[in-house]
Amino acid sequence: MKIFSNEDMRRVLKMPAVIDVLRTMYTELGHGRVTNRLRSDIYCGTPDGGVYVLKSMDGVVPKLEVSAIRINSDIITWIPGAGGVRKEKVPAAPGGRWVGLILLFSTRTGEPLAIMPDGYIQRMRVGGASGIALDLMARRDAKVLALIGTGWQAGAQLLAACAVRNFAELRAYSPNREHRERFKEEMREELGRDIVLKDSPDELVDGADVILIATNSIDPVLRAEWIKPGMHIATIRSSDLERPVYDIPMRMILHGREVLPQDLITQGTPDLRELGDNESWHKRHDNIRWDELATLGDIITGKAVARASDDEITCYFNLIGTGAQFAAVAMKLLELTRGTNVGHDVPTEWLTQMEHP
Amino acid sequence: MKIFSNEDMRRVLKMPAVIDVLRTMYTELGHGRVTNRLRSDIYCGTPDGGVYVLKSMDGVVPKLEVSAIRINSDIITWIPGAGGVRKEKVPAAPGGRWVGLILLFSTRTGEPLAIMPDGYIQRMRVGGASGIALDLMARRDAKVLALIGTGWQAGAQLLAACAVRNFAELRAYSPNREHRERFKEEMREELGRDIVLKDSPDELVDGADVILIATNSIDPVLRAEWIKPGMHIATIRSSDLERPVYDIPMRMILHGREVLPQDLITQGTPDLRELGDNESWHKRHDNIRWDELATLGDIITGKAVARASDDEITCYFNLIGTGAQFAAVAMKLLELTRGTNVGHDVPTEWLTQMEHP
Repeated sequence: MKIFSNEDMRRVLKMPAVIDVLRTMYTELGHGRVTNRLRSDIYCGTPDGGVYVLKSMDGVVPKLEVSAIRINSDIITWIPGAGGVRKEKVPAAPGGRWVGLILLFSTRTGEPLAIMPDGYIQRMRVGGASGIALDLMARRDAKVLALIGTGWQAGAQLLAACAVRNFAELRAYSPNREHRERFKEEMREELGRDIVLKDSPDELVDGADVILIATNSIDPVLRAEWIKPGMHIATIRSSDLERPVYDIPMRMILHGREVLPQDLITQGTPDLRELGDNESWHKRHDNIRWDELATLGDIITGKAVARASDDEITCYFNLIGTGAQFAAVAMKLLELTRGTNVGHDVPTEWLTQMEHP
Repeated sequence: MKIFSNEDMRRVLKMPAVIDVLRTMYTELGHGRVTNRLRSDIYCGTPDGGVYVLKSMDGVVPKLEVSAIRINSDIITWIPGAGGVRKEKVPAAPGGRWVGLILLFSTRTGEPLAIMPDGYIQRMRVGGASGIALDLMARRDAKVLALIGTGWQAGAQLLAACAVRNFAELRAYSPNREHRERFKEEMREELGRDIVLKDSPDELVDGADVILIATNSIDPVLRAEWIKPGMHIATIRSSDLERPVYDIPMRMILHGREVLPQDLITQGTPDLRELGDNESWHKRHDNIRWDELATLGDIITGKAVARASDDEITCYFNLIGTGAQFAAVAMKLLELTRGTNVGHDVPTEWLTQMEHP
């Protein structure tokens, strides 16, 4: 049994490998051979007046002979800011650290295969799914990629896009110049390519073939006037698109049917703050029949059309994650580290038992 | 962070301590200050024709500053036998071992506190809850305890009963003489008391004040004719009681309201085989209003009556487990081992991260 660190993963597990295994997983999912248990969140008050949340999700991918459970154990606080109240996870574990774990099991023997923090994979699996969708949905001659956001998730979006297509120009914009500059440096190192930074969103999207959105803005960031025929758009939050965007005819594809946006509304958890208040969200989306949209599993298996013409506008909603994503990507890591000394060894018998449970 | 073994727990964590912490947990539960996520089971076929199941349940007990997730990763098979088809977990992990884990987290810092197999606690938490119920429900002058079953769970029932009350006579019966004899030996060692073995169930129950049932029989084992005024009965499966038992007026108390017996029927999992076919089960129970019964949390907080008179017959249904049971008992273990060298040390930073997940 192995315990991996985010640093181990950063060294070994690159975006092309993540996309490769996610393609297998989404194909299996599209054929109905993958099972996810949706994330469940238990919020509770703590004796000292804080808020604690335990989140978990499960996924089983029989073809990869793997199952996983992903666990988050977070201390939560709400911070008032310019854009409204923002939910923050407090790094309250020793050393000022956060707690998110993936446990991997074999479906052949049941045994625990590995335990690892979820940070690196969290970023890569979101980016990877977006990359697969982009490859299926964007025009074959797409040249210019525009990225709104220059944070932690934005980098993975770019890595994934470049893993599936050759873009002539990569652009990025975010409101803070310092953040943009830092992002450019990071991407030069991680991707080996030069990002063109833009000073305004209008400059960013002018002539773009693909717009990827990965911000933590509370307000919508994508304006309807920017959208041109043939574009491909992808976002990790439906609230990133301003209301008029939803009036533009476009082919929308969901990450999965496990959680539809309206479910997020009715779950009634503080996560809803991310979507703004319910009423305004409903007004923004009331013309969309979310439950009739095709999914990534549908288009990867050819059960649904990914793009019907070069003029069509396509939009991919890369919303809530699933256990099977973590299972598949973590299994790839295990495969890549087999026979190496990457990771800490823990005797498997520490985590198995002679007792019939 | 600690990794404990069942052997560590067997040495350190005795039934009185288990009952002590479970009393706190059930009191909190009764006051609505404990949250459980019900067990979810993902069954799937494996490429080699087997069946794999991933089960998980979560629980948070703020007063004890602890949350837990309990995971089972099992290879399943169905074995035809004298009593019908029986579901069996195959010990397919290396060394012929099973896989069930408890992960414990702090609700104050979020950090992982411990990981341990679930076998020992599984047995102790079932017994412990039964002991708490017995103490609240059995007549104060109960002298003779009769145990149906001499297996793994039966021992914990006896340990718990003896932890809360002083019985003058402890009796046990199971169909296999060899099993009975072995059980007597084990209990002499574990409990330090002599069990009176009986050759038939009729002899067993004659004059008994308390009947505890812990068998893996598929057929009902408790006959209506054995039940006398003032008796206390407890079972871990409602199917242990033959149909006419349900016609006898008695005060029935459930372990919890999280899962009612009828829910087990409608879950549609292979677990149902344990209950026999649905129709016959329904016929056996159609006169019981399960959802109106009081729970262990109700009687421990005094919100419901545990026993109204010395003549009343009381029956405790110690059905499906909850994450909070595992959280509470595992936390007790942690408390008892603090400052000792019990368990393997794993650096907490292996299972926490600098990445904001």
